[in-house]
Amino acid sequence: MDITFNTNPKLNILIPVFYLAWQDDTLSKNEFNALNAFIKNQNWFTKAEKDFLKSKIDYASPPTRSELFHWKEKIDKALDSGKNSTNLTELGILMANAERPALNEDDIKKIGVSFAEMESDLGIMSREVISGLRKQRDTITDKYKTVESFDVKKLTAFLDGTQSAVINKVKALISSQEFALNIPTDTMEYREKVLDWSKILAQHGLGSYAYPKEHGGKGDIEGYFSIMETLSYHDLSLVIKFGVQFGLWGMSILSLGTEKHYKKYLKDIASLKLPGGFAMTETHHGSNVKGARTTAIYNHKNRTFTINTPEKYDRKEYIGNTANHGEMVTVFAKLVIDDKDYGVNAFVVPIRDSDKNTLQGVTIEDCGHKMGLNGVDNGILTFKNVVIPYENMLDRFARVNENGEFESPIPSDNRRFFTMLGTLVGGRIGIPRSALAAAKTGLTTAIKYGDKRRQFGPEGGQEVPILNYRMHQLRLMPYLANAYAIHFGLQYLTKRFVNRTEDEMQEIEALAAGMKSYSTWNTRDTLQECREACGGKGYLSENRIDDLKNDTEIYTTFEGDNTVLMQLTAKNRLGEFRKQFGEMNVSTIFSYVVDKAKTSITEKNPIATRNTDDSHLKDKTFQLQAFHYREKEIVSSAARRFKRLIDDGLEAFDAVNVMHPHMIQIADSFLDRVFLEQFQAQLELVTDEGLKEVLERLYNLFALNKLEQHKAWYLEQGYMEGIKTKAIRKMVSQLCWEIRQDAVPLVDAFNIPDSCLGAIVTNKAAEA
Amino acid sequence: MDITFNTNPKLNILIPVFYLAWQDDTLSKNEFNALNAFIKNQNWFTKAEKDFLKSKIDYASPPTRSELFHWKEKIDKALDSGKNSTNLTELGILMANAERPALNEDDIKKIGVSFAEMESDLGIMSREVISGLRKQRDTITDKYKTVESFDVKKLTAFLDGTQSAVINKVKALISSQEFALNIPTDTMEYREKVLDWSKILAQHGLGSYAYPKEHGGKGDIEGYFSIMETLSYHDLSLVIKFGVQFGLWGMSILSLGTEKHYKKYLKDIASLKLPGGFAMTETHHGSNVKGARTTAIYNHKNRTFTINTPEKYDRKEYIGNTANHGEMVTVFAKLVIDDKDYGVNAFVVPIRDSDKNTLQGVTIEDCGHKMGLNGVDNGILTFKNVVIPYENMLDRFARVNENGEFESPIPSDNRRFFTMLGTLVGGRIGIPRSALAAAKTGLTTAIKYGDKRRQFGPEGGQEVPILNYRMHQLRLMPYLANAYAIHFGLQYLTKRFVNRTEDEMQEIEALAAGMKSYSTWNTRDTLQECREACGGKGYLSENRIDDLKNDTEIYTTFEGDNTVLMQLTAKNRLGEFRKQFGEMNVSTIFSYVVDKAKTSITEKNPIATRNTDDSHLKDKTFQLQAFHYREKEIVSSAARRFKRLIDDGLEAFDAVNVMHPHMIQIADSFLDRVFLEQFQAQLELVTDEGLKEVLERLYNLFALNKLEQHKAWYLEQGYMEGIKTKAIRKMVSQLCWEIRQDAVPLVDAFNIPDSCLGAIVTNKAAEA
Repeated sequence: MDITFNTNPKLNILIPVFYLAWQDDTLSKNEFNALNAFIKNQNWFTKAEKDFLKSKIDYASPPTRSELFHWKEKIDKALDSGKNSTNLTELGILMANAERPALNEDDIKKIGVSFAEMESDLGIMSREVISGLRKQRDTITDKYKTVESFDVKKLTAFLDGTQSAVINKVKALISSQEFALNIPTDTMEYREKVLDWSKILAQHGLGSYAYPKEHGGKGDIEGYFSIMETLSYHDLSLVIKFGVQFGLWGMSILSLGTEKHYKKYLKDIASLKLPGGFAMTETHHGSNVKGARTTAIYNHKNRTFTINTPEKYDRKEYIGNTANHGEMVTVFAKLVIDDKDYGVNAFVVPIRDSDKNTLQGVTIEDCGHKMGLNGVDNGILTFKNVVIPYENMLDRFARVNENGEFESPIPSDNRRFFTMLGTLVGGRIGIPRSALAAAKTGLTTAIKYGDKRRQFGPEGGQEVPILNYRMHQLRLMPYLANAYAIHFGLQYLTKRFVNRTEDEMQEIEALAAGMKSYSTWNTRDTLQECREACGGKGYLSENRIDDLKNDTEIYTTFEGDNTVLMQLTAKNRLGEFRKQFGEMNVSTIFSYVVDKAKTSITEKNPIATRNTDDSHLKDKTFQLQAFHYREKEIVSSAARRFKRLIDDGLEAFDAVNVMHPHMIQIADSFLDRVFLEQFQAQLELVTDEGLKEVLERLYNLFALNKLEQHKAWYLEQGYMEGIKTKAIRKMVSQLCWEIRQDAVPLVDAFNIPDSCLGAIVTNKAAEA
Repeated sequence: MDITFNTNPKLNILIPVFYLAWQDDTLSKNEFNALNAFIKNQNWFTKAEKDFLKSKIDYASPPTRSELFHWKEKIDKALDSGKNSTNLTELGILMANAERPALNEDDIKKIGVSFAEMESDLGIMSREVISGLRKQRDTITDKYKTVESFDVKKLTAFLDGTQSAVINKVKALISSQEFALNIPTDTMEYREKVLDWSKILAQHGLGSYAYPKEHGGKGDIEGYFSIMETLSYHDLSLVIKFGVQFGLWGMSILSLGTEKHYKKYLKDIASLKLPGGFAMTETHHGSNVKGARTTAIYNHKNRTFTINTPEKYDRKEYIGNTANHGEMVTVFAKLVIDDKDYGVNAFVVPIRDSDKNTLQGVTIEDCGHKMGLNGVDNGILTFKNVVIPYENMLDRFARVNENGEFESPIPSDNRRFFTMLGTLVGGRIGIPRSALAAAKTGLTTAIKYGDKRRQFGPEGGQEVPILNYRMHQLRLMPYLANAYAIHFGLQYLTKRFVNRTEDEMQEIEALAAGMKSYSTWNTRDTLQECREACGGKGYLSENRIDDLKNDTEIYTTFEGDNTVLMQLTAKNRLGEFRKQFGEMNVSTIFSYVVDKAKTSITEKNPIATRNTDDSHLKDKTFQLQAFHYREKEIVSSAARRFKRLIDDGLEAFDAVNVMHPHMIQIADSFLDRVFLEQFQAQLELVTDEGLKEVLERLYNLFALNKLEQHKAWYLEQGYMEGIKTKAIRKMVSQLCWEIRQDAVPLVDAFNIPDSCLGAIVTNKAAEA
């Protein structure tokens, strides 16, 4: 009689291993040989039995597909028998004894050890394999899902705060039919559409929010920023067009001009009757705008100014709202009186008449197709002997008096220029807020997609929403936490700006420069992750991530290159530090030293550097101390290092160059600390328990994720040990897992109009 | 007589401080007050003198602009006098004594101390300020520039190696007039242009390079990859169209079909007479393609197959070359015989006739506008009872025999499917090589721009090329080093693939999956940095970074989502590790333990962990050991952790989920090590001294930058101490500084056709 698994049931003991060998690719050719050798050594098999078994694992002659199926059926039956097995041998024994006891206790004892050894020699992780063979399994990953643990409407109200009326007004507008997001692929059509949209916004009085009441505005600067941010859920070309017309162009009049200019221009700017631009950047002078070379020569005879572009690369470039629509621009040019250069000042220069004919002496070129924002008509302006009247000088900070002499309350050209720039800091508040809105839209898309999209799953089980995967959570949840942190931080910046005093200006400028960089870089990274997290769907234009990404791409460059702005922030921080140090007398220096010593004792002792308690890691005081420590250490080590470089005889310019990367760290650590503080401050204001709990989780993720990102620095400093940084990483992962349940309601709280979200989010029925 | 600086020359001592106070914004209002108080206490001034001095620093009444100018003239004169001053007081004394000795040695001794104290109290960093006041200064940053220290042509030859003939052939073609890069904005026109370009490539025999000679090809798979890579300097839609037609479509026939299919299709595919596609991905099954739900039901009666799309989201989506042009596609569908499912197999299915009419039962939709690659016509395919003949099953790995029974040399459906996929691994070599070319183009643009673009500079000096700034170097040089490392690594992968044996397949698949992710993510990051490094110019389409970026954006998703591919690589590594461990007997385990102990002794002793010698940090053995250490530790800790999770009773699927981030680390550390080894291997082959030196520098930057990126891990492990990681950071910065001089020739060595580079690079005359 032929030998089979049915006639010789004890042979069934090897079926699980055989199945594994053929079904998966766990075993190598060598291991097939090892298995063969093992069988040869089993003396309780007859020669014929051995030959039969070996024929089943002949690498050159696999079993048939149906035989494999048959083995699996037997395995399933054994697994369903209710008896447990912790390795393949135990499972095999169950199968051998399935019909009648083919192996008794003694046999089992005898062979159990060698089989278990064989399993382990083959590197089989038995429990895992058994678990993989089981048909239906309950897994945690499988069952995890969205739970709405708090009142979404309450959170929206908390986020919007006092601004909810204007926010809802804008949301209603951009949700209306006339704002339907059908972006024309033709650039010229797109620009006209954006202009039309801008006019509608102007009609609704949204353009003049920031202007004084006496000039037809609302005097509500905070409202203006809320409009910018809320509009940014919609098309970003519209936002930039809006920002150029009502922000840059209008605010340059308001900030650099005087009453006569307000009267003459503001109303028409607000209504968009007078479209205009802001002509500061030149081809060869972008970051270094102080080096602008356009000239405004004063003519004593008729009290006019003549505007000139000396050479090709002194043209005003990238000027928004000018390639097609602008009729007037604020030009930054060096004022020259009697061949003497009085530094860069601002002038209103007409470039087109109201019939859109380009004026004499002005040449307007089109910047052409861009990576994004193609609904904005960026132009290049050249001026050749363009004469403008005396009144067109924006004369808040400098003027030419009746004797043709230069006059200014600020004697230094340098300082005057930066004072002028300082009044325009609003752009560095509007842009990061616009960037934040784009990040929120991306997150809403990616998180809702991740909650619906299923891929892979436990064998025999349903496929799992990809947002249940730890890796996917780690990719998105920290950015969700960032969005909340930056939301609160930018609200703080806005309030500081709106309620500013003269003395605070430099600090607020530094804060705005830094937050602009922080927020726009965060948006860049958020949208990148969102694109990838949505896979192929993220690449389709219908889902909007492409436009959000490409439009905000330039946010890291315009309104000041981020790297340069971070230097500016750092310089301010270093200055603050120097002053603080400079003002110290013996007693304050003493207390500073004591302070430092205290840090060492309380924070750098082994108990603190190795403390991995959950309650410690989530302790707000610990977190703030750690952020503060990093900030202070980096700024003071920078000061020491800079002094050393200078003392070593390096030219200041070279020393500054060496310090650049260190300077970025100064700004970054300062900003981290401010965002942390503001998040903490907001938590204090929450009364609703549900909200508090979920916001605390987001807050902790923000705080610990930052510590995790900078752990190399903390380890280098000996402020933490490896055991602690590892505990932080683990907690970050755990927080991501917890927040995933609330992720969908957390993006719902942004309350982004459906009309602004991509097809994969809004076509709920279609995708479900 | 009125008191002036001229009448009372000793008062000049304060001019430098006054100038500083008004010119820059170093001093605060408080500090103006402090200065006032200081003057008040100087008893060697008369009351009238004090009043005069105080009037010059009245915060409410600044000096005139011309007075400020006058002060500066005096300062300049003193600085030019040839006498040194190390602080503002010394400078002031020089000025006081300029005409005649107004202050004698005794005076100076008396007042020097209090003045120096005042300077320090104000936080003035004297040397820096003096250096800032000087008119003309020699700085290192200022004078630094491009130096060609090696023979560029020799480096190009080294990079191209045996492939230079085919590379130059492709470069000549894409530089020709008919390949001029005027990308139509209209999508349909763009697609036709790309098709036309593809036909020209086919005419030149470039489509069939990889096909066997007996079927009209060249049997040159390495050449095929060189073509893909070189074409990628040109438009990337062309590359993908080319890859879909000749790679995916053609190679699916070659890899999954048999002789009869080769005869029937290959010639027409190579000539583009038969455009086709590769229909694997379904809307709901992308990463998890094994879950594909399209069916191919076998009909016994007439030996045909009926192809069906069961439900809407089982449609084949994103299928390249199908929305407009494809006439036939390879469809992956579950083979069903007599209601039994035999797993996913491949079938050739016609979708259009040669007049481009869609065939009955087939529905083709257009994927619509995408973020990039709009020259590729991606479609969505639905099949409704589409009957195909028996021969259309690609039957290399499975067939239906004459009795209508399923037959396959690979019994497991799972294993068969992955064997089929394995033969298609070529796509995971072509894509990372294409990505690399795009990164090279971006780097060429950004580095050449950085070398020309000047912004800021020492006071009174010329503006400085931005590539001289340390921060700018840190942004770009590491990516330049990566480009070289990845170049060598992908050449290695290609050679391994071309010369593979059956046994190596799994390893090569894992390597390709990992390198595909590594290279495409690196390209994503490189192009992002290049865009920002080019500022506004990087945003203009004429400079091509936008297209390169948007086109390669999907590279991280298609041919396998990077995150999923990294898991695949990691799984293979973990498997290797397990086998290695599994095969160990007592003696090998003992030697493993000894090995580990040795690591501890030689690498983890305080001398090694704190060694900051240049020669040590640049030592190839140290670097390789460090990379190896990370790789081994991560994989073995993962194995331990996974076992612990399973032993703790976690379901395998849940445990795998928890392990995902750890798995990414396994793959990443493995890839880092392979790239490092291959870079080292290439250095061995260089004989030319000039080349060797510059490549050694790039190699060191690659190696040390990776150690710097992973320093947190090394610190956590105690493998390095803070002093060492800080030394590494410093050396990375130094290497960037050194490589900057060679950066332009290093990108010139890529030898990218001028016609493929953006306007800011090629309009040399215009920008200079």
